[in-house]
Amino acid sequence: MRETKNINITALAGGVGGAKLADGLAYLLAPGELVVIVNTGDDFVHYGLYICPDLDTVTYTLAGIANEKTGWGRKNETWNAFESIENLGGSTWFQLGDRDLGLHLERSQRLYEGESLSQITAEFCREFGIHNRILPMCDKPVPTLVETDKGVIPFQEYFVHQQCEPVVKGFQFQNAEHTDPAPGVIESLSKSDIVVICPSNPWVSIGPMLSINGLLDALKSTIVLSISPIIGGKAVKGPAAKMYRELGVEPSAYSVARHYKNFLTGFVIDNKDIDQKHEISNLGIKIMITDIMMNTQQDRIRLAEEVISFGQAIISG
Amino acid sequence: MRETKNINITALAGGVGGAKLADGLAYLLAPGELVVIVNTGDDFVHYGLYICPDLDTVTYTLAGIANEKTGWGRKNETWNAFESIENLGGSTWFQLGDRDLGLHLERSQRLYEGESLSQITAEFCREFGIHNRILPMCDKPVPTLVETDKGVIPFQEYFVHQQCEPVVKGFQFQNAEHTDPAPGVIESLSKSDIVVICPSNPWVSIGPMLSINGLLDALKSTIVLSISPIIGGKAVKGPAAKMYRELGVEPSAYSVARHYKNFLTGFVIDNKDIDQKHEISNLGIKIMITDIMMNTQQDRIRLAEEVISFGQAIISG
Repeated sequence: MRETKNINITALAGGVGGAKLADGLAYLLAPGELVVIVNTGDDFVHYGLYICPDLDTVTYTLAGIANEKTGWGRKNETWNAFESIENLGGSTWFQLGDRDLGLHLERSQRLYEGESLSQITAEFCREFGIHNRILPMCDKPVPTLVETDKGVIPFQEYFVHQQCEPVVKGFQFQNAEHTDPAPGVIESLSKSDIVVICPSNPWVSIGPMLSINGLLDALKSTIVLSISPIIGGKAVKGPAAKMYRELGVEPSAYSVARHYKNFLTGFVIDNKDIDQKHEISNLGIKIMITDIMMNTQQDRIRLAEEVISFGQAIISG
Repeated sequence: MRETKNINITALAGGVGGAKLADGLAYLLAPGELVVIVNTGDDFVHYGLYICPDLDTVTYTLAGIANEKTGWGRKNETWNAFESIENLGGSTWFQLGDRDLGLHLERSQRLYEGESLSQITAEFCREFGIHNRILPMCDKPVPTLVETDKGVIPFQEYFVHQQCEPVVKGFQFQNAEHTDPAPGVIESLSKSDIVVICPSNPWVSIGPMLSINGLLDALKSTIVLSISPIIGGKAVKGPAAKMYRELGVEPSAYSVARHYKNFLTGFVIDNKDIDQKHEISNLGIKIMITDIMMNTQQDRIRLAEEVISFGQAIISG
């Protein structure tokens, strides 16, 4: 058995970037030491199925069955149901793999039977042999809407169907402030030695989580570390940099730090952004500089290890 | 192009046996000469999907993509969604292939959007390159319930999950008499030169169709031929013989003829049942004796050819 780090961490994660860091943390921490809270703002109903893209990316990644190439879905996937839909002239903008589809069907059925998303997620984790706890940010739907020059668009429609092309003017997290976090979310944030905000999109991955009733308050009384999802002015993946620009903010590690400044204790930036060190420090935020890109499993573990050490250093003052 | 038979036929079909004869008829008749009306009494909702077992068996068979070995589902099928459901501890009594699943998803979505089952079926036929018309018996759900010694059981639950084990006491075709046939059903029955009742289960495949408002009346004014689904006292496939026995009737070609005697013009029985010829004739029903088993594509065409000739002989008096 791996040596335990003797530290309790709660990570907030969106999709790919979040899942990768969570995977590194899961490798290093003992079962029970890590809780991953996942954005469900981009959940949506498609073909009658309740689909949770970020939750599934995190689950598949921790289960070791994620498709690393696409950043979504499962490896060793087949596409026969989807091909069948395509041949019948159906909707094809959202791709559904066969194995993935099985999970959506089973989750939708259990939701229909009255189980909560957090219960179902816990059961799926057990079936997948995941020893860490994965929690959806909340059990009720809190759909993210994107305000754009083309109107107000549901998130997956903007993100997948329209490929992030419309110009962003703002975001709506429907009912978020009236929605309670899923059971265990506040408790795990309060009991953690460190909260880690993964390198996920601040606007549409972390933003929805921070909007949930009581979640932001829970962060304010704990050590919060974040890893920049922006390197050299560019998003590692996805539309974060484009969103910053369209909202009149220069995309940079510094902009992310400012985004989180009300609750952020320490910030991890990339070597490429070393020039922003003093600006960020001036916000009253501690800095760690390293290589943030996670191309390999070793990168995930190394970055997780550095984040844990950064947290331990802050704790021991 | 194949020589046309210059005859209009409407066939009533359940699952496998009906699909096979319909396939033979489709081979011989020109597009427009054949309409197949299909039982939808065993349709049900499973995993939120609207599944039409008989309609799909007929459609897949006429499209040339049916799984001949199982008698349901598609050939070249994969089972990854189903395996995924199984691995998550989901329900596995009703098997769903990946390609088949795509059709269920697309149909359910279109029903949800307000299209009728008959519209959707017509569109699917077009996409599958089927030139003959396939009509569900009705557009609204008319679920078959099986009254048994274990209680009243929904059809698929009885048929697939409980494998026809409970002892049958009767059947309920929910709302059938208050449900109109799908658009085109009565018209095609009225305009046909012959109506062919395929070798399908009289109780649960043909029975539900005959219960639909106005359908039986439409049969009474036309030439109706049927092919016995019972050979030598045994059902070619499925529980028909068991049902006859449990309802206190000896399963035989004669019993099927008696079942249909109010509207049947001619009956096709197997060589094995030649001893029942006079009994059946005494019901005022014309008889044709041949080999009914359809093991090969050639058998389907040969039997269809014989049924057409039988009908033509009756027409020309």
